Formats: sequence, structure tokens, C-alpha cells
Amino acid sequence: MKKVTVSKELRASGVNRVTIIGGGVIGASWAALFLANGLSVTVNDPDPNIAEKVNAVIQGASIALSGLGYDVDQLTTQLSIERDLVTAVSSADLIQECGPERAEFKADLWRRIEQAAPSGALLLSSSSSIPASVQNVSMTEPGRLVIGHPFNPPHLMPLVEVVPTDKSNASMVARVITFYRGVGKVALELKKEIPGFVANRLQAAIFRECMYLVREEVVSMRDLDDIVTNSLGVRWATNGPFLSFHLGGGEGGMAHFVEHLGKGGMAKLWATFGEVSFDEATCQMLIEQANEFYGGNSIDALAGDRDSKEVAILNALSAVNALVKA
Amino acid sequence: MKKVTVSKELRASGVNRVTIIGGGVIGASWAALFLANGLSVTVNDPDPNIAEKVNAVIQGASIALSGLGYDVDQLTTQLSIERDLVTAVSSADLIQECGPERAEFKADLWRRIEQAAPSGALLLSSSSSIPASVQNVSMTEPGRLVIGHPFNPPHLMPLVEVVPTDKSNASMVARVITFYRGVGKVALELKKEIPGFVANRLQAAIFRECMYLVREEVVSMRDLDDIVTNSLGVRWATNGPFLSFHLGGGEGGMAHFVEHLGKGGMAKLWATFGEVSFDEATCQMLIEQANEFYGGNSIDALAGDRDSKEVAILNALSAVNALVKA
Repeated sequence: MKKVTVSKELRASGVNRVTIIGGGVIGASWAALFLANGLSVTVNDPDPNIAEKVNAVIQGASIALSGLGYDVDQLTTQLSIERDLVTAVSSADLIQECGPERAEFKADLWRRIEQAAPSGALLLSSSSSIPASVQNVSMTEPGRLVIGHPFNPPHLMPLVEVVPTDKSNASMVARVITFYRGVGKVALELKKEIPGFVANRLQAAIFRECMYLVREEVVSMRDLDDIVTNSLGVRWATNGPFLSFHLGGGEGGMAHFVEHLGKGGMAKLWATFGEVSFDEATCQMLIEQANEFYGGNSIDALAGDRDSKEVAILNALSAVNALVKA
Repeated sequence: MKKVTVSKELRASGVNRVTIIGGGVIGASWAALFLANGLSVTVNDPDPNIAEKVNAVIQGASIALSGLGYDVDQLTTQLSIERDLVTAVSSADLIQECGPERAEFKADLWRRIEQAAPSGALLLSSSSSIPASVQNVSMTEPGRLVIGHPFNPPHLMPLVEVVPTDKSNASMVARVITFYRGVGKVALELKKEIPGFVANRLQAAIFRECMYLVREEVVSMRDLDDIVTNSLGVRWATNGPFLSFHLGGGEGGMAHFVEHLGKGGMAKLWATFGEVSFDEATCQMLIEQANEFYGGNSIDALAGDRDSKEVAILNALSAVNALVKA
């Protein structure tokens, strides 16, 4: 079933024309998703070769988008490139910023965007590390800026973390969420700003222990990866950590978990966690093992394999959910 | 395609008769898997109602096993219950222990099992928290005991962590791994003992940060769970944390990741992690939110939903892998 029509939520959001600032991999991936959802997309980027680069990413993304059910035959018909910022944003309904991760650059960028864009345009930053409260310091209406942080790759992964500031108003944030849902995303609002937001903090938390276990030679990098894909990954693709432990508590649920598994086992495990750092020896070990286990395939081939598996999982979960609802 | 025949690896392992010590949920789930793979299974348990309990778990497990392609019509034909330990193990090719998590109990149990079981029988403990070197202290040949720690539920989740002691010999460990592969598991050997082994340590590492983010009211429990299922879970069901970051480094792979994303971003995030504990206030918060968000459904219904999604994911990944190999 090809998704050729504009979704109800997308219509409700009032967004037809999107401008993407920065045509790197994140920006171009967003472009592919927005185009597949029937939106007009303008990419603003100073790079003279940007059209070629954006088209290459969209071409690559079209495989996964097709796998997810989108019609990708005419994907770039509504795509345009505009090197001038003012022209690029002057008639946009929504601006998705994907520029360099430098606070001063972004602060100045939003000052200029705010002056040139329609007053009702939604202003969103894809930043993974610079909160909106740092980016909005030169804006007249700082509350307009909200983080819309995708999980890579944006055209494929459902999650968008929506992080407003305390200056943002609720109805505007609601419109942002409606928009992202309209392009098929699962948009979740964080209640407050925190470095790294949620997904990347969790990723950093697990990775620290991954590094420790490999450095201590408990397992090889490949075996650790295989342990995760054959256990935790499958579990967490269906239920998050809390629901998993609510079920892990059996009939007693979370109350049983915290009393019998948390206070005892898990707290004891925490006490055995060791320190790691990105020192030279550890970095060398990680690079060597990555080359040993994964160097035989190109990054493109590995990413293609990952994408096809992620599409398969998302479609399998959609099918189960559709059955449950039917 | 129903898996009615005994696999090549299972034949190579020489295992036909399995005895399970302890017929709780883990033991009964193992029983269901072993029976589905054509093995004779004896369950040893002092509980007078154990037959009924084991049958109920097997009945439940048969849904997932059927989903995975096993023929479950005659699942309990080769199942027997034997309350006497000596009789239960005397002709076993393999013993999978799933008793209470008490070190002294297990040490005494293995002493008695070693006396009564055939000298070539494989001796495996499902323990998640008591390493083989603690359980084997009263054995004549302590090297025979190896941890075969499943990920819950064992009949469904692929992972088995195989953890020998420094007294174990390699050929025996290889036979253990061949056996687990023969019943469809992904058996991975840890190079050394460590509290919690690998999967549960990683789970504890991420959960600490999950608790922190909910306690700090950055997100609700349900939103955090939804963030994971819509991002990290899907990613880690296809690629583990290391391969994910090798790809996250783009063309530069892991070397680019450690230099530009690890040393900078991730190490900075670690510095912002706060302390949490299973204190009363935190436990109450977890219990309240679990009840608020998940209390509307029974644990059985939630577990059934999880299982059907996990089966769908495993089958989807198998299909992709089969395509790649074809």
C-alpha cells in the first residue's frame, strides 16, 4: 500500500512548504522523508555541489522509504535548492535546521531566519547537542524555537525528540508534534532540557559499560554486539526498559521488580561498574576490533544491511499492531 | 515450514535426554524449547503440583514456538516429571539447572548431581547471578559445570550466555555451544566470569539512566519506553552498540566515532550523569508510574503482546538474513 496522499495530521499542521537549512546527511534524509509525504522542500546550503549531494542521499533513502510503503517514483519533483537564506525561508511553513553544531553559528542563524521567515512558520532545530535555550538567545521571540531531534537516519527511524524551552507555548508545540506525526514519526516531548536529550543519554550509558566489558576482555566487540542483537535489542524494539521490568516482575509487576530484583541484584551490579575513558589505548582497541570484525565490508554495505533489517522490523511491528487493533 | 526434525548440531552434540532441575518459569520454558526440538525432557522438582505448573507454561510457550515455526501439536509426549533427583539425572545426557538462586543450595545440588549423573553428561546452570566457580566448589570435577544463562523467555529469546570457569576444558564447552545452537539458540561464550554476565550488566547500565531521567522528570516512564522502542531498540535489534557507532562514524568508521563523537560528545554526557538508588521515594515513583501507564492491562496480556512482537521481529530478521544468503 503506497502512501501517496497527505496524511490527516499533516493537513492539520498546516505545513505545505518546508525549508531545510543544511543539506548534509541529516538534512537530506529529512528532505527525502518530507518529499515522500508530499511536501515541497527547499534545501538551503552554501555548498556549490549541494544539489548532487542531496540527490545522492535521497536516492539512497528511497530504498528504505519504498520498503516502508512510500511511493518514491517522483521523489525530487518538489525539491529545490536555494543558496540564499532569506529567499529560502521567506515563504516556508516550517524550517528544519540541520547546520553545523556550533552555538554561535546557530544563534546568529536563527536571528536571521526569524527576520526573514513568515511569523507563523514553525522553527525547528535537528541539533543533538545544543538546546533551544542556547540557540534562541538572539531571537525576538525565542519561544518559537523548538528542538526536533531525529534519530539517525531520520527518514527511517520513527523517533523525534521534541524539546521546547520554558518560553515556548503549548499550542505551538502541539502543532510541531502534529506535523511530525503527519510525516509518520513518533514525536515525543521532553518536559525539560537536558544535555544529550534522552535517546543519546541512554546510548551513552550503555556504551560506557560496553567499552568496559570489551576493555576488560570479558567479550570481544563482535560477541558483545551479537549478545545485544539477540536479546536486549529484540526486547527493547517491542517494550522499553520500564515495561520490560514491569513484566520481569511477574504477577507482582514493577513493585516486585524494585523490591526483589532492583534493590538486590541491580544495585549490586552498579557497584561493580568500572571506569572507562576514551584514552589512547582504549580507542586503539576499539578501532582495531572494529576493523577486525567489521572492516571486511564497506560502511555503505553495512548501512544498507542495517536499513533493510530496520525496515523489516518496523513493518513486522506495524503488522502486529494492525492485527491487535483489527 | 515446521521444524519437526532434530537439527544437525543437536545430533552432533549427542544430547537426546535432558533433565531440568526446577520447574519454575525458566525451567518450564527451557522444557518447552527442548521438547519442540525433539528431545526427551525430565523435570525434577519437589513441588507436588509441578506437573500442572509446567504444563501451563508449556501451553503458553507453544504460541511463540508455533510462531517461530515449531510443530507444537505433540509437545508434551516426551515430557516426564521425576521428583527424585538421583532418578531424574541418572540417564541424562544434559542437565539444565534452574533452581533457587542460593549459592549453598546450588553447590550442594551439583555435588549430588555429579554423583548420580552419567560421567559424560553436560552440566549447565541457568543462573543469572551465581557464577559456576561458586557453584562448583563441592564437585569432584568442578570444570564440568558451565553457566548456560538464557535471556527471558528462554523458549523465545535467541541469546544464551555460556560462561565456563578456568577449570573447564574447551572441547566440552564447544559441545555445550553446539547443543544450544542445535536448539536454535545464539550461544556466545564469555571469556571470563563477571557479576551479571554481559546482557544483564548492559541492562542495568541503561536502567540506571532511565531511572535518573524519570526521577528528574525529564520524561514520563511511558514516554521513555516509547523513545527506546522507536529508536534504540530497533537499532540494536539489527546492529549492536559497537557496529552502530562504527556506522555512526560514516566513512571514517570507528576511528571517526571515537575521535569526533566519543571524546567530545559522549565523554561530556557521562560527566552529566547523576546518581540514583532504589530508595523509597524512587521506588514509589516507579511503581506509581508503572500502574498509571501499564496497570490497565494484565501482566499476561502485556507479555502476550510482547511475545507476539518478538516473534514477528525474529521472523522478519530471519527472512532478511535468508535473502542475503540466497
